[in-house]
Amino acid sequence: MPKVRFEPLGIKVECVKKGATLHDLLEKAGISLETVCGGRGKCGRCKVIIKEGIAPVTSEDRKVISKGELSQGMRLACMIRVKHDLVIEIPKESARNEQVILEDASIKAPLRPMIRTLTAEVPRPSLSHQVGDSERLMSSLAARRQKEVSMGLYALRRLSSVLKIGDSLRLVLRRNEVLDVLPEAEEKIYGVAVDIGTTTVVAYLMDLSSGECVSVHSRMNPQISHGDDIISRITFALSNIEGASILQTQISQCVDELITQCCLSASVPKERIYETVVVGNTAMHHLFLGLDTSNLGRCPFVPVLAEPIEVKASELGIRTGKESYVYSLPNVAGFVGADHVGVLVTCRLWESDKPKMAIDIGTNGEISVGNTGGISSTSCAAGPALEGANIKFGMRATTGAIDHLTISKDFEVKYSTINKGRARGFCGSAIVDAVSEMFRVGIIGAKGDIRKDSDTERVRKVKGETYFVVATREESATGKPVYITQKDIGEVQCAKAAMYAGATILMEDMGITQKDLESILLAGAFGNYIAPRSAIGLGIFPEVPISKVKQIGNAAGSGAKIALLDEQSRLEAKELARRIRFVELAVRPEFQERFVQALYIPHRDPSLFPGVMSRVAEINRAEAEC
Amino acid sequence: MPKVRFEPLGIKVECVKKGATLHDLLEKAGISLETVCGGRGKCGRCKVIIKEGIAPVTSEDRKVISKGELSQGMRLACMIRVKHDLVIEIPKESARNEQVILEDASIKAPLRPMIRTLTAEVPRPSLSHQVGDSERLMSSLAARRQKEVSMGLYALRRLSSVLKIGDSLRLVLRRNEVLDVLPEAEEKIYGVAVDIGTTTVVAYLMDLSSGECVSVHSRMNPQISHGDDIISRITFALSNIEGASILQTQISQCVDELITQCCLSASVPKERIYETVVVGNTAMHHLFLGLDTSNLGRCPFVPVLAEPIEVKASELGIRTGKESYVYSLPNVAGFVGADHVGVLVTCRLWESDKPKMAIDIGTNGEISVGNTGGISSTSCAAGPALEGANIKFGMRATTGAIDHLTISKDFEVKYSTINKGRARGFCGSAIVDAVSEMFRVGIIGAKGDIRKDSDTERVRKVKGETYFVVATREESATGKPVYITQKDIGEVQCAKAAMYAGATILMEDMGITQKDLESILLAGAFGNYIAPRSAIGLGIFPEVPISKVKQIGNAAGSGAKIALLDEQSRLEAKELARRIRFVELAVRPEFQERFVQALYIPHRDPSLFPGVMSRVAEINRAEAEC
Repeated sequence: MPKVRFEPLGIKVECVKKGATLHDLLEKAGISLETVCGGRGKCGRCKVIIKEGIAPVTSEDRKVISKGELSQGMRLACMIRVKHDLVIEIPKESARNEQVILEDASIKAPLRPMIRTLTAEVPRPSLSHQVGDSERLMSSLAARRQKEVSMGLYALRRLSSVLKIGDSLRLVLRRNEVLDVLPEAEEKIYGVAVDIGTTTVVAYLMDLSSGECVSVHSRMNPQISHGDDIISRITFALSNIEGASILQTQISQCVDELITQCCLSASVPKERIYETVVVGNTAMHHLFLGLDTSNLGRCPFVPVLAEPIEVKASELGIRTGKESYVYSLPNVAGFVGADHVGVLVTCRLWESDKPKMAIDIGTNGEISVGNTGGISSTSCAAGPALEGANIKFGMRATTGAIDHLTISKDFEVKYSTINKGRARGFCGSAIVDAVSEMFRVGIIGAKGDIRKDSDTERVRKVKGETYFVVATREESATGKPVYITQKDIGEVQCAKAAMYAGATILMEDMGITQKDLESILLAGAFGNYIAPRSAIGLGIFPEVPISKVKQIGNAAGSGAKIALLDEQSRLEAKELARRIRFVELAVRPEFQERFVQALYIPHRDPSLFPGVMSRVAEINRAEAEC
Repeated sequence: MPKVRFEPLGIKVECVKKGATLHDLLEKAGISLETVCGGRGKCGRCKVIIKEGIAPVTSEDRKVISKGELSQGMRLACMIRVKHDLVIEIPKESARNEQVILEDASIKAPLRPMIRTLTAEVPRPSLSHQVGDSERLMSSLAARRQKEVSMGLYALRRLSSVLKIGDSLRLVLRRNEVLDVLPEAEEKIYGVAVDIGTTTVVAYLMDLSSGECVSVHSRMNPQISHGDDIISRITFALSNIEGASILQTQISQCVDELITQCCLSASVPKERIYETVVVGNTAMHHLFLGLDTSNLGRCPFVPVLAEPIEVKASELGIRTGKESYVYSLPNVAGFVGADHVGVLVTCRLWESDKPKMAIDIGTNGEISVGNTGGISSTSCAAGPALEGANIKFGMRATTGAIDHLTISKDFEVKYSTINKGRARGFCGSAIVDAVSEMFRVGIIGAKGDIRKDSDTERVRKVKGETYFVVATREESATGKPVYITQKDIGEVQCAKAAMYAGATILMEDMGITQKDLESILLAGAFGNYIAPRSAIGLGIFPEVPISKVKQIGNAAGSGAKIALLDEQSRLEAKELARRIRFVELAVRPEFQERFVQALYIPHRDPSLFPGVMSRVAEINRAEAEC
């Protein structure tokens, strides 16, 4: 069967199916190019360069590839039937372009990676010194007072083959385990940091010798096909025989493909990646590792594992270096996962004298408050409203989504949209702006009720539903107005009240008030796109001077990078996760009271509040079932 | 696709090929039944019992299976087309009967296996004690002052599922690694000791709780299809692209299938096997582990690895417990392998006050001499003559092979054959008897020359070849006489001279003579079938009183068993292998002289010896090429 090797990735694939195209083999190898014609030779996006082997020029090639490029061996992968062995180079321009993702400027961590290299000289054997390859290497290390190393089969096999090239070699070590043996000339080694979000998965390819991030790619979490949120995925895993295994395969393939893309962009062979550090919420962590998630979905919500774990990448279907590892930061609890630990590792809460608050706003919002004296964390079931779900015109942050808006005192609305498209709906940050601004200019009261007597045509009532028009039918992409309903406002109130109540209880437990907070750190995509002014205006988190609110980028992903680059940070994270006081809001009798207070905009002492009390009762019922 | 589970092995196989029979799936699962009709429903040897699922009774079934058995679900596997899921029990009588193999009465080792079990109670979690499964287990162990254990993904997955059954469980541990989590009721755990010989592979299934051997099976080493001896296999590995991988697959499949057979005989599920200890010569060791053998075949004959190694069984294609290990005893040098270390572990040479000699006679004979003061070992390239190869009527130890013979003073020959068949040829022990007896009664002289003037018709000369008839044409199976030629005697002389010279040099190095030896221990199949009287008469090893010669059975296999049952013995073996002084005969100038002396029967000072000097020169040439 013909074999194809893809460079610079070093991935080898056998052509098992007769008549398969090179494009099919690219897919088999997990390398996705941004083809839009479906492999019909039209779009010219699957250009590859034939380095070894023969592929005749087709008429499709001639239409989209210049003569000069054709003579250099460039062809369309979708037009090549693989009949003989080939060596293929994938040019950078063919690597798929993903949406721009949240990337933070820099991370602060010393470069002390767990993966390190060590050069060694291995003297040759002789009849009077009949010592095995491995034992000669060990003696050579011992003579240089290096610690003893351990070698598995792969390392031993590599040792024999590298010793055929020369006596000098470079060991790739993780603790005392030899992961690979390289000829001395090979220098670069790599690692990957991965943030597995419920919605988005991001992979950062890191050069472990320089600490630089050499490429980044992101994708939707493919598990979305089995549910948008954590609970529906846990349910899928439970209710289908193969459910858990399907979800594990989906996410591990996704991570593996992202790594392939990163390698492609940076011309790095996958086998030079020796470690992948992952963060994710506890459910994503368990699904990725193939651990049982059934207890995460039911009271008392315990994980299988909280401690950090390291496993061979091959166990998870991640096809990096043969003996490479996957390491996960620890979880704190069923709903405070390794991603939040990543946030804490990034902002080093435990080194602050004055208390700081770190918040990751999402369907499940995680909040931590702490300083050198200790850290408390909690998780709030805010629901997806702040991310635009359950909102009439809620949508993802794609073209036409209103991302920010202001309302003037005379009720004029100014808004911006993503990619400057005509308005189609609201993404999360705009929803927060909208409710906050409506309250500020008096369109809604503290209870969230739209004042039907407002002096503007933007407030309307149709079929019993009251709403506020943000984009008129003339402005919108659909010819119909884009608006916020009374029900939308209620959803936002519930979401922000859960967050606010959680933060309040954490502070009360520590005996502090918002005045004591040195800063509030907002992590994650939503925390970074949100307007702090609106967040405070709406009362998502405690009221502090706006200068104290800091947006810290994808701090979960940064935490993964730091753990990849600095072994010491892993130990700190492990200690941290053990020491964190996890506060379970469900068992706190005062939670309900705080929640009701926080339903007010921005927040207030409780009073009669009939409109939302039924929802409160509903939430309590749900919690009581546990 | 329909799935079939085979009990009591617990092996699951998918029926991928449409129309496949259950017999095909048995083969796919590596379970070989002793079928002789080739799956045509005639021999009745592939009887299985349908435990779940449906298989209609066929006319073939009716012919060989009783009504009572039919009603209990017994069917012929070769007649069942697999269309639906099935659960199959394989009755003990269907397990293949192998030839009787060399089994030693008992091994002496304390029962301190590396694999041990530990029971634990894991308290349930609650909302006020939201601690993960793994962390609750760890706390429970810590409370009982147990050492910390480490859990991989499989153990974590098992933990969750066992905790659904109850709070008590049994951990299967190797060092501090949890290999499996069993419900408390599961008690038995197993290990396997394997002796990978160049010709024969033997597997012993051991109950790790009692130390008992619960079943044994052996097979020919399937690598024989690529050469009878080590050098031709190394050549095959080198000269074919896939050579090494073919040999690795052959031997690992063979070991895996032997384990399956052992499990079948003893009704043990394969997943309850947590460790396999292997011994073999250095080449078998390397081929099994997939290590490069090219340096073993050329001067200075160094292995890739001498130290003991432990790897996950799955890395080698051994399908025992998911996280189970394969452990190999250390090698000493390229031609003194882990099998010889196994011999030394069995006879504990290092504990003896007076020196002992341990010999494993074969194509490559390994010899060790030593006591508490130290051990020296060497390997002699004796060639295969003592095993019956390169001998005109040499054959394997099967029906009709003469295994022992005596010659009276009036040249009458008495012989016995294997299975009392009519004589066809000689197996190794008879060849030693023959030459030794011919010398004793004066048919040959000290130089090995057949005296043509002997007063017997058994000495004949045809077409320039002189020979001695052992079985006449009237007695033989073929109607032609079975005899020993002058050339055969020369081959035997060369083989025994190499062994004797090696033993002499080892003794000289230690400053001892044969009078100082407390005993000579003969290991291995040949060492056990050989008549000590003939061996001494021929001069294979130093002349000691016959009472000092001890046949110690398959001591290499016993060494594997001991290492499996006693962790301490592994450490001793590791230390031993490091300390052994390996004597390379090729670099010893006196070897040639000793060799020539030993060509005499039984052995003698050198003198003119023209007949064999050309062979000596030839051997020297071969050695000088290195």
